[in-house]
Amino acid sequence: MPESPIRKLVPYAEQAAKDGKFIYYLNIGQPDIKTPEAALKAVRENDVEILSYSKSEGSGAYRKKLANYFKIHDIDVDSKDIVVTTGASEALLFVFGSIMDPDDEVIISEPFYANYIAFSTASGVKVVPIVSKIEDNFALPSIEAFEKLITPKTKAILICNPGNPTGNLYSKEEIQKLTAIVKKHDLFLIADEVYREFVYDGETHYSIMQEKEIEDHAIMIDSVSKRYSMCGARVGCLVSKNKSVIQTVIKFAQARLSPPTYAQIASEAALDTPRSYFDEVIAEYIGRRDTLISELNKIEGIKVSNPKGAFYCVVELPVKNSDHFAQWLLEEFDVNGETVMVAPAGGFYSTPGLGLNQIRIAYVLKKESLIKAVNILKEALKVYKD
Amino acid sequence: MPESPIRKLVPYAEQAAKDGKFIYYLNIGQPDIKTPEAALKAVRENDVEILSYSKSEGSGAYRKKLANYFKIHDIDVDSKDIVVTTGASEALLFVFGSIMDPDDEVIISEPFYANYIAFSTASGVKVVPIVSKIEDNFALPSIEAFEKLITPKTKAILICNPGNPTGNLYSKEEIQKLTAIVKKHDLFLIADEVYREFVYDGETHYSIMQEKEIEDHAIMIDSVSKRYSMCGARVGCLVSKNKSVIQTVIKFAQARLSPPTYAQIASEAALDTPRSYFDEVIAEYIGRRDTLISELNKIEGIKVSNPKGAFYCVVELPVKNSDHFAQWLLEEFDVNGETVMVAPAGGFYSTPGLGLNQIRIAYVLKKESLIKAVNILKEALKVYKD
Repeated sequence: MPESPIRKLVPYAEQAAKDGKFIYYLNIGQPDIKTPEAALKAVRENDVEILSYSKSEGSGAYRKKLANYFKIHDIDVDSKDIVVTTGASEALLFVFGSIMDPDDEVIISEPFYANYIAFSTASGVKVVPIVSKIEDNFALPSIEAFEKLITPKTKAILICNPGNPTGNLYSKEEIQKLTAIVKKHDLFLIADEVYREFVYDGETHYSIMQEKEIEDHAIMIDSVSKRYSMCGARVGCLVSKNKSVIQTVIKFAQARLSPPTYAQIASEAALDTPRSYFDEVIAEYIGRRDTLISELNKIEGIKVSNPKGAFYCVVELPVKNSDHFAQWLLEEFDVNGETVMVAPAGGFYSTPGLGLNQIRIAYVLKKESLIKAVNILKEALKVYKD
Repeated sequence: MPESPIRKLVPYAEQAAKDGKFIYYLNIGQPDIKTPEAALKAVRENDVEILSYSKSEGSGAYRKKLANYFKIHDIDVDSKDIVVTTGASEALLFVFGSIMDPDDEVIISEPFYANYIAFSTASGVKVVPIVSKIEDNFALPSIEAFEKLITPKTKAILICNPGNPTGNLYSKEEIQKLTAIVKKHDLFLIADEVYREFVYDGETHYSIMQEKEIEDHAIMIDSVSKRYSMCGARVGCLVSKNKSVIQTVIKFAQARLSPPTYAQIASEAALDTPRSYFDEVIAEYIGRRDTLISELNKIEGIKVSNPKGAFYCVVELPVKNSDHFAQWLLEEFDVNGETVMVAPAGGFYSTPGLGLNQIRIAYVLKKESLIKAVNILKEALKVYKD
């Protein structure tokens, strides 16, 4: 089990905090946004007397309401196509376990969410990376590039859309390119769509579930964590029209008994969150992104991707080893007692050597903090020596 | 992934309920006992505004209080020896993933908790069963029997104490026999001790963690599910003094981010549950067990184990195939519109053919219901034809 690249820095951050440094945490996708009142209230007013197991596939009432939420997002699914999981993490574990045997291969466009490696390792599955580039704003690689990597062991292509760590958003045309590939080679297409709501600049999110002709190939992963700023609920789900996939996933779900009950109460109630909540949240993220990107672009010698969704961006720095740079920021640098914690991007790549001069920034702090944090980065780069 | 043997019957139970039959559910370990008020209250009065991730290894405050709880139970551990998990299920998955490679072997005394097979399958680990017998009240097999099964691939012995499905309780002497075996052969000893509190007849529970000389070999699994009738919380933990095991387990924990936050609030508060709660609960279970066993013993031709702990017992019936019998009870039998759902015991064995004439009964219903349920079994056996 590989160690999470972000976690490696935690001891240095703890030491820096102990030493009295103030740290801007741009390293992790834990939003500072308030959880919707409807969700908090439902838990405070719950009338549970025996905190019993829910159904292994998730509470019936929650799955029904969730199917309705998806319909509103042009994703035509029924509650029986949904299995509620303990976070999107468990959904991915169940998918890998259900559709792949040890040594099977999954193609993932890199940089990708670091824990994909952990879940594939746990399932004995091999990750085959396909490189996307900051110069192309992390657009989908070409069909030819995918086809070069497909072997008899390839079982699936996994995307994250909108993307963590890139903030990229695949267009309808890109999803249709993927549709053609998975149909032609009879693969599964797995899409982690947990950032569905966080799409900016008038763009709309196009789900793999909208491609009717790959109904039997498509598996969508979802979660309440980011949508409702409910990371601690640990409620995700897995959605597929492929009945045999759902049947196998339910066996995994039964083995772990059930997803958490209180968190399902919160998640069900969260579905009543008014549209205005998201309007405000999205306006806030757009403001943060614009501030972050424009501040970063003032620093000489760096390259910034142009995120269209989620709340991350990848930044290329004039450094040789961003692991070392990130650690140095915590251990040895400060501006008036303040420093920044960022995620070195090497851990988001599985091709050795890639991403070593990149970092991921999560814009989960208020604008004023982002401005100060970027200024610290700027000052740091003036004095940092590789 | 094998299907849970109990779950196979669920569609028949659902149909029977639809057809208007009343069913006594003796098939599953979901207690009807009220969750302690302290736990329920803490969640109702929580002041969470942003439902954020907890630490991957569990909330610091909870782990500290949990270490204290263990100390009171003569288990001398520190919070750093504890990793909070999403149920005991996840703790077992983390243990298998951390200490074993695919094709490694774990010896488990059978009959055993059916999901052990699911977790080992998910980890690519081979379960090697060692038979314990109803005639011996499921006592620990001999050292010689264990040693016959140990190969270079054997990494661990796993016990459940008190036992599900047997209700057996290992004595201090039996734990010391196991201590000698794991020391001699350098194995891990994993003990699922989730039923620790449910020990009857003046016996006391002796934990593997009390054996100081196997500190580096011992891994204990625990959970709030049964102790506080909080199955739906999904909070368990894994406890070990072996630092390298804990380090690896934490990597698995980090990959899935964190255990559920609300449930940790409930679990932490539950630790304030007064002793009188357990006194009442245990008195209730003893009453139920005594009623169940004495009623069962009135049926001719059956054999009943004598449970000393947990809330299960295994019953041998004069039938050839208890899968079929259990299904028949739901589909074709009733006494005045009432029937019983039991767990066929075949799924608790991995040796083919064993347990086919046994069932597991969970005494999670009130005495009056148990009397009626056993009467239904009695009438059923009069007319049932294999």
